[in-house]
Amino acid sequence: MEKILKLKELLRSRGIDSIIIGPSDDLEYLIGFKSSPDDRFQGYFINSDPEKKDFYVVPKINHEEVAKHVGQVEYIIWGDEEGFLDKTIEKLKSQYDYKPIIAVNFTIRANDTIDMLEQMDIKFINGHRLMEDFRISKTKEEIENMKIAGQIADKTMDDIFNFIKAGMYESEIKDEIVRLLIENGGDDISFEPIVASGPNSSMPHYNEGTRKIKEKDVIILDFGCKYKGMCSDTSRTIFVGDISPEEMEIYNIVKEAFEKGQAVSAEDVTADFIDTETRNIIDDKGYGQYFLNRTGHGIGFSVHEAPYIKKNNERIIADGMAFSIEPGIYIPGKFGMRIENIVAFKNGEKIIMNNSSTEIRIVKV
Amino acid sequence: MEKILKLKELLRSRGIDSIIIGPSDDLEYLIGFKSSPDDRFQGYFINSDPEKKDFYVVPKINHEEVAKHVGQVEYIIWGDEEGFLDKTIEKLKSQYDYKPIIAVNFTIRANDTIDMLEQMDIKFINGHRLMEDFRISKTKEEIENMKIAGQIADKTMDDIFNFIKAGMYESEIKDEIVRLLIENGGDDISFEPIVASGPNSSMPHYNEGTRKIKEKDVIILDFGCKYKGMCSDTSRTIFVGDISPEEMEIYNIVKEAFEKGQAVSAEDVTADFIDTETRNIIDDKGYGQYFLNRTGHGIGFSVHEAPYIKKNNERIIADGMAFSIEPGIYIPGKFGMRIENIVAFKNGEKIIMNNSSTEIRIVKV
Repeated sequence: MEKILKLKELLRSRGIDSIIIGPSDDLEYLIGFKSSPDDRFQGYFINSDPEKKDFYVVPKINHEEVAKHVGQVEYIIWGDEEGFLDKTIEKLKSQYDYKPIIAVNFTIRANDTIDMLEQMDIKFINGHRLMEDFRISKTKEEIENMKIAGQIADKTMDDIFNFIKAGMYESEIKDEIVRLLIENGGDDISFEPIVASGPNSSMPHYNEGTRKIKEKDVIILDFGCKYKGMCSDTSRTIFVGDISPEEMEIYNIVKEAFEKGQAVSAEDVTADFIDTETRNIIDDKGYGQYFLNRTGHGIGFSVHEAPYIKKNNERIIADGMAFSIEPGIYIPGKFGMRIENIVAFKNGEKIIMNNSSTEIRIVKV
Repeated sequence: MEKILKLKELLRSRGIDSIIIGPSDDLEYLIGFKSSPDDRFQGYFINSDPEKKDFYVVPKINHEEVAKHVGQVEYIIWGDEEGFLDKTIEKLKSQYDYKPIIAVNFTIRANDTIDMLEQMDIKFINGHRLMEDFRISKTKEEIENMKIAGQIADKTMDDIFNFIKAGMYESEIKDEIVRLLIENGGDDISFEPIVASGPNSSMPHYNEGTRKIKEKDVIILDFGCKYKGMCSDTSRTIFVGDISPEEMEIYNIVKEAFEKGQAVSAEDVTADFIDTETRNIIDDKGYGQYFLNRTGHGIGFSVHEAPYIKKNNERIIADGMAFSIEPGIYIPGKFGMRIENIVAFKNGEKIIMNNSSTEIRIVKV
């Protein structure tokens, strides 16, 4: 309840009448209810005005389960024969006799706001950044849980290195990572593990698993788990049987950029500054065009959230923030490499959440 | 390409300038590219005017992978430092010097259309029903693949019945269903299997897995797989050790409604008619308030799509359509039951896609 009251305060301070929170990490963060969006509309409507009752729009078939988790709140229950729209608009019109300003979180579909706009004059605004601001500062307890999530990922990184052999499919390695993350104490995975081998490694989000590991491969491993709601996320690049001089040169550049990014991460600097300092290392060596992505992303309840460590982001790093440093070089059709740790700040302390080796590691064949 | 040309024709006939297709079943259906939405905006903009070039907005880090699958099309590639918005709006403004009518498919987020509207005057419309209409009629080959997907699910239903024992967790049964669906020939699951036991069975979409199976439980099993892109989906309700007279009475009502629904399914009747005839059986026995959901949903490339078999849906059943018949009775806090098959129509033939037994089945303890 405390979080809801704080959110209402934030809405009031920004002149927003209401926010719609669909099934998402935001909803889990606010009220502890874990669910995923499906084709039936569902949303928690939270009003800034304490005089106006909040309500939860829920499909009839989900009502019992939602009520068990969400508890005492007004439910607008809709059946398949009628759809969510009429009852939701009727309720909104009873609360607002003017054009309300309503924010939506990131799981609300465009088609649903489009349908609502056909029946009522509403000023919809992007509520994603607002929810990101709201969640950006982690508590001491959340940071502690993130540390444990990080240790589980680190242990899994060591275990999986010893598991990998030439001839295995990428998908076998993915399955084993999932098994290990749970065995090592994770409650769940925080995202589908990435195992990108050989030329696949040049695609940062490659996720097919259909290739067999070969001698002389470069492999990017990228995964994490959830622990008491908090995420971990770490990447390492390893080599199979051998490493070529070119690969070693590029690995050392990525590692230098990674270490620079970790080193310059500090309270009171901007996200842009961290990105620039990291990127300069790769630019100076002539590989700037192959560093395709931002240097990092925030992490907490969601695996990707604010603060984004990227160019032009003037966000000041502050107490309670946690984010990844993950520079990479991706040469299309050839190979890619990335090293990633999570860095966090709490009560004056700088915490590096990952500790598995970043030295060159070669799988024996 | 044929599908894209047909879609352009449909857009023209409805006076729509363009449609944005995000990563989704729609995109896979149109161009064979399987991907899932993530936090970076991605969309294929398809214009109705053949003079206007289609374009694909893609994050830099996904470009290589997308290009490999999507091939020759104009790419609007955006980097993390800039976001998708400016380049996308610039492109749209170069194509439209008037307020265009742009449809969006169901994976486009409200926040992204809200951001676009701040920079350009666009009439966004709901493109979900349009895409559903576009995909509603299956080809002979698609129906054949659905039959195979159905047989894999049926075999898995028999296998899992023999696997279940009192004392197991629901989650163990779920894991085994996934394993069996793949072992029996599925390419993937079509949705996360539902194993709802005891009082959990009264929540149609219960999906936690944390309860242990006990003697005298009712268990709803609901799952399906994908085969060459096409989905299966089937449910059965089983009993552990014993069945009470009340359970037997209700099972027989659900079964009678299910058989009625299958029997009245035919070309040229409306979806409303099938729903009403099925629902009347349950209403007449006094359990109408416990039949929470629609009688069924269409199925094909997606596990839930048009036609929806529900009240007030005047859609006429026609050649190439496939949908579920799945009446149920859900008594809160007590138990629920459901039986589900897929029915399809092709070239004058009525096809029942599932054949596992609907007789009362009791797990021995």
